[in-house]
Amino acid sequence: MDDERFAPDDVVLGPDEEAALLELAGFTAYVRLGLFGLIAKHTYGAPGLRAAQRMQTIAVRIGQQQQALLNVGAERGVDPVALMRPFGGLFDSFEARTAESSWWEGVLKAVVGHGVASDLCRLLARGLPDEVGAAVRAALVHADRDKDLRITQMIAVAAERDPVLASRLSLWGRRVAGESLTLSWEILQTRLLLADLAETAYRLREEIPLDLDSDEPVSRHSTRETLQDLGSATPLRSAQSGMGEKDDEGMGAIAWVLDELKAEHSRRMERMGLAG
Amino acid sequence: MDDERFAPDDVVLGPDEEAALLELAGFTAYVRLGLFGLIAKHTYGAPGLRAAQRMQTIAVRIGQQQQALLNVGAERGVDPVALMRPFGGLFDSFEARTAESSWWEGVLKAVVGHGVASDLCRLLARGLPDEVGAAVRAALVHADRDKDLRITQMIAVAAERDPVLASRLSLWGRRVAGESLTLSWEILQTRLLLADLAETAYRLREEIPLDLDSDEPVSRHSTRETLQDLGSATPLRSAQSGMGEKDDEGMGAIAWVLDELKAEHSRRMERMGLAG
Repeated sequence: MDDERFAPDDVVLGPDEEAALLELAGFTAYVRLGLFGLIAKHTYGAPGLRAAQRMQTIAVRIGQQQQALLNVGAERGVDPVALMRPFGGLFDSFEARTAESSWWEGVLKAVVGHGVASDLCRLLARGLPDEVGAAVRAALVHADRDKDLRITQMIAVAAERDPVLASRLSLWGRRVAGESLTLSWEILQTRLLLADLAETAYRLREEIPLDLDSDEPVSRHSTRETLQDLGSATPLRSAQSGMGEKDDEGMGAIAWVLDELKAEHSRRMERMGLAG
Repeated sequence: MDDERFAPDDVVLGPDEEAALLELAGFTAYVRLGLFGLIAKHTYGAPGLRAAQRMQTIAVRIGQQQQALLNVGAERGVDPVALMRPFGGLFDSFEARTAESSWWEGVLKAVVGHGVASDLCRLLARGLPDEVGAAVRAALVHADRDKDLRITQMIAVAAERDPVLASRLSLWGRRVAGESLTLSWEILQTRLLLADLAETAYRLREEIPLDLDSDEPVSRHSTRETLQDLGSATPLRSAQSGMGEKDDEGMGAIAWVLDELKAEHSRRMERMGLAG
């Protein structure tokens, strides 16, 4: 009985699920590597030693999570670099379009940009069998969950003290989110294994309650409205050129994913007092 | 017998040794926090995913070592920020004078600048009773000791392939080392508890063999020659104005420390093929 409980039948993956797991682990590890650099470099220029130490502590945790994801590959004989290679350079144009002009903008970019990316990974992990997705989900636990470490809390306090900063960060957050959602859309258009995970998660959406960070009802904007809402500089170019490449269920799934990501982004901005 | 071996008399610290331990732990933690940021931010712009992952792995280790140093304070009821606060801003002018112009220069700055700083911490830890200094020394183990992670190895390979890069890095390394030695000198002039540790280490130099990274004989340049040799922009200004503030033994100890740091720096540059 015990053996059955610890090694249930559905952990034996078929070749498609195995490939999807490696794809998601590689994508998530690459996202986590980017977030690590983005958080860690903000030990520099931090407003004080306490903030610097907080950034370091969070970055170290993210680094450890990323290494756990690389282990998913290593356990299957896949080298870390081979695991992440399909995603190399993925954030280059995102980075080029979101060059920060202050420490706070850089930190908010980490919270918003990688918040969206991490939510995407969490959502896609729902498309894997429970026990298998667990390895990826464990590596996606919010690294700043403890109340005294929370970056959103630090931003909320700073924004409340300084309305000019709050207003600039509010606009900046919209811009970063627009770029992040565009990038998420592009990823789901080009990485078919990830799109398949999105479809499975979409089919299961009634059965498994969503828990990205909250249980509020889901926004019902269409994908196109979502991208327009966010005022991204070039949201529709790629959206239009890609239309029709996926079947209806695929588009439904992708639209659903983007709506969820946008809803979670809005909640996050509200928690920081930047929803304006 | 066993009890004696595991809790020898000299682990019970007097108030001076206790203060010196906290001072060194705080200084070392601050140095490690700086090195963390410097290494971690170079996950960005790395020449390939493998180099980025290597930077991240090393940075995470350094972060863990830094947290172990903060624990030395926490075990004595000292908050991390309070422990490091005396050293806040210590590297600001060093940073301003060594703004890198390429990824390789940034990485060499980490190797050379924090190499000197870490060697200084290792040397000062010799001034503490063995068992007590061990906590600090353990946090100073080279984070890239494994052969396949070694940053010096990566730089050596790049320098061998590209003589123009090698020649630029060789000059850059001298400049960073000059600034680092000047800063080390200033620290030993202003932080008297650290200067005391240097004097103890100096007195013990015949009894305990040095093991910064090698067992080669020690260079016998004078401090002034050492600083001049390195061609630092402003090495003698502070050296001259500070003369006479320490007694003879103090100056002997500081000169010895700087000579050791310089000798280890030279060995490090040689290992990278940048000694020219």
